[in-house]
Amino acid sequence: MTLFDELKTAAADDWAAYTHHSFVQQLGAGNLPQPAFRHYLIQDYLFLIQFARAYGLAAYKGHSFEDLAKGQAGLQATIEETELHVRLCAGWGISREQMAATAEQPATVAYTRYVLDTGMQGDLLDLHVALSPCVIGYAEIGARLKPALEANPEHPYAEWVAEYSSEDARRLADEAIAYIDQLGARYLSPARFPRLAEIFATATRMEAAFWQMGLDLAAAEE
Amino acid sequence: MTLFDELKTAAADDWAAYTHHSFVQQLGAGNLPQPAFRHYLIQDYLFLIQFARAYGLAAYKGHSFEDLAKGQAGLQATIEETELHVRLCAGWGISREQMAATAEQPATVAYTRYVLDTGMQGDLLDLHVALSPCVIGYAEIGARLKPALEANPEHPYAEWVAEYSSEDARRLADEAIAYIDQLGARYLSPARFPRLAEIFATATRMEAAFWQMGLDLAAAEE
Amino acid sequence: MTLFDELKTAAADDWAAYTHHSFVQQLGAGNLPQPAFRHYLIQDYLFLIQFARAYGLAAYKGHSFEDLAKGQAGLQATIEETELHVRLCAGWGISREQMAATAEQPATVAYTRYVLDTGMQGDLLDLHVALSPCVIGYAEIGARLKPALEANPEHPYAEWVAEYSSEDARRLADEAIAYIDQLGARYLSPARFPRLAEIFATATRMEAAFWQMGLDLAAAEE
Amino acid sequence: MTLFDELKTAAADDWAAYTHHSFVQQLGAGNLPQPAFRHYLIQDYLFLIQFARAYGLAAYKGHSFEDLAKGQAGLQATIEETELHVRLCAGWGISREQMAATAEQPATVAYTRYVLDTGMQGDLLDLHVALSPCVIGYAEIGARLKPALEANPEHPYAEWVAEYSSEDARRLADEAIAYIDQLGARYLSPARFPRLAEIFATATRMEAAFWQMGLDLAAAEE
Repeated sequence: MTLFDELKTAAADDWAAYTHHSFVQQLGAGNLPQPAFRHYLIQDYLFLIQFARAYGLAAYKGHSFEDLAKGQAGLQATIEETELHVRLCAGWGISREQMAATAEQPATVAYTRYVLDTGMQGDLLDLHVALSPCVIGYAEIGARLKPALEANPEHPYAEWVAEYSSEDARRLADEAIAYIDQLGARYLSPARFPRLAEIFATATRMEAAFWQMGLDLAAAEE
Repeated sequence: MTLFDELKTAAADDWAAYTHHSFVQQLGAGNLPQPAFRHYLIQDYLFLIQFARAYGLAAYKGHSFEDLAKGQAGLQATIEETELHVRLCAGWGISREQMAATAEQPATVAYTRYVLDTGMQGDLLDLHVALSPCVIGYAEIGARLKPALEANPEHPYAEWVAEYSSEDARRLADEAIAYIDQLGARYLSPARFPRLAEIFATATRMEAAFWQMGLDLAAAEE
Repeated sequence: MTLFDELKTAAADDWAAYTHHSFVQQLGAGNLPQPAFRHYLIQDYLFLIQFARAYGLAAYKGHSFEDLAKGQAGLQATIEETELHVRLCAGWGISREQMAATAEQPATVAYTRYVLDTGMQGDLLDLHVALSPCVIGYAEIGARLKPALEANPEHPYAEWVAEYSSEDARRLADEAIAYIDQLGARYLSPARFPRLAEIFATATRMEAAFWQMGLDLAAAEE
Repeated sequence: MTLFDELKTAAADDWAAYTHHSFVQQLGAGNLPQPAFRHYLIQDYLFLIQFARAYGLAAYKGHSFEDLAKGQAGLQATIEETELHVRLCAGWGISREQMAATAEQPATVAYTRYVLDTGMQGDLLDLHVALSPCVIGYAEIGARLKPALEANPEHPYAEWVAEYSSEDARRLADEAIAYIDQLGARYLSPARFPRLAEIFATATRMEAAFWQMGLDLAAAEE
């Protein structure tokens, strides 16, 4: 059993509430209201800036060139993912300027700054555990939604589902799982597991609140 | 005009939405549902741990013994405020263990980690501006609610209002305003004002979301 | 065997080179050239500012109110120790302004910033291990030099030896040893010991270089 | 006048002592004892790990994607420079394992941790000013030594001089100068200049101490 699986098991309810959140279910079924998706996309852009910072932090926290190279790869990948994201948003008529000028929602602030502060306060293991609900959870969600995509050639959120069900997304998630095991072998003492489980559960709940934010902002406009 | 007043003016709507939030209005009128207040109190305990960390950070960020002594005083005051808080909660039948075992809400995570990450990313001026909606805003709210307290000897939230309308609270707020001016004289370039205004506005909106959380948690239980 | 003793055993040569450094031997014998002691005292003032910052960092890194209170106590004690230090220096005709205007030597920068960066990069255990050669080593040195002090009522460095052989110094050292054990029980995995030993050995060598700096600066003036 | 030139002017003596250090003069003349150069090379490898961390920190400290991309580029360049360095050392019969197993000298610790702690304590401008004596100073030294290289086809340190007198080194230095101006326009208040000048002067003195370390280690072996 990987350390990631142990953390998921310890936070089973939170994990289910996040990965099967109503936003995700509607996204998969293709009946998520477009305003909810648009709000999500815009906040996700603001989210990615902070995520890139988190990989910079991972490099700062590294002890070996391998750690540094992993931080560098994550930083570069996040900067590139942002460009993909900007193109995806352009398809929905949302410009980069519009996104950059939007205020961050509390849910966006909560998850991103939790990751950054947890990583700064602790070590590389804490940081990567805080990042994992995003990196690994999105690939899990993407894989689950993929059949819905294949069943519906007109799926309105095809591009999003395709991105997170891609082989690339799977590979990145598998690497993250392996790296958490490697960091666990280095740093994890038995007494530390409860703290790690708390980080994982909190980060997972913050991700669920991020989906909820999309629904709430759309509902508030009606 | 103090720098704090300039920041407040630049974020006038956010400041009004925070300091005149429905939670505050009901708190002053004495008709805030008790469950809303209880949820607020419990989350505020979790908030104070992070706030104490922020004053530790202020000491780390200091350049002179004066900065260090200010960080130390803030840290000590926050630890002591927590003890007051624990006693206040005991009066409402909420134990320290119960508070410590409660999960942090997204709104709690959002404001606290925003302050910590903003302070770590930037300098002492950024940190103290991010702290100011709490330190200074609570005294402003306390002062506004004080007449309601004096008009009603049975006010259910008398202790809370008394604490934040006290001379101590006013003095701490005045010191914070003066310190922000002092840090501004040291660090503020004209080009930096927009970023500082963004920090202030974001922190203020996170404070408003913290009040809203009290109302939402109570509403969800009904 | 305490964790501190394990670390000391693993770095036995470095520890001996630090605690029995020629500067220390001459200090105990009372024949240390005064210029060497003066240079040391001035740099030590600059050192204490950074040490106070390290205790602010310890508070930032804390998870519990106990951790926070320990950071606060260390911060307060260091600020107070600085005042003692300023009085000690006044006795040698060195003013606070003179010390504050002196440039930091590489050896001063090396140890202090090593502690701060190691603590920021890692967790509370890393930070307190990096601090330990100073906090605990000085008490060990003080205890060893105490008989020389008692044998010589005119000892030129009586005040310094008295301070670090005091019961207060011993108590602080014992508390630091106990806290490292407590942090070890929380955070230490077997795989992490080599890294911890490296931190301890490096910090110890930086302390030895700090003594050497006093001798070198005095020699350069001759 | 660029901000970098203002800083250099304010620290003219320290800058001259660094860029015209005896180690540099002997390196250019080709009569630097090989042991001094070897010690320098080995410590420089340990230096580069910390420098890569500093660029990770720069990404963490960034506010815009431009800042993040600059951090990422610096991180990637430093990781690649390390590979060049490993090859250069292999030519001198020094293996990567040998370098990684060498203990850091106080001078190595002093400069690298000063950069990291200064950057963490302050903002991006502080960080890049602390990095500048290395990034920009090496290109200045390289350019000055280039004629000596051209005059002597058998120059023992040809590879080193070629690397730091290359167009790439010049371009990186020019970019660093321009970026410091850009950060200055964003962040520099007049009251802050003395602190910035202190950072620059301290970092420059730590670089000079790094050269001196090469000479001292070689002398100690004789």
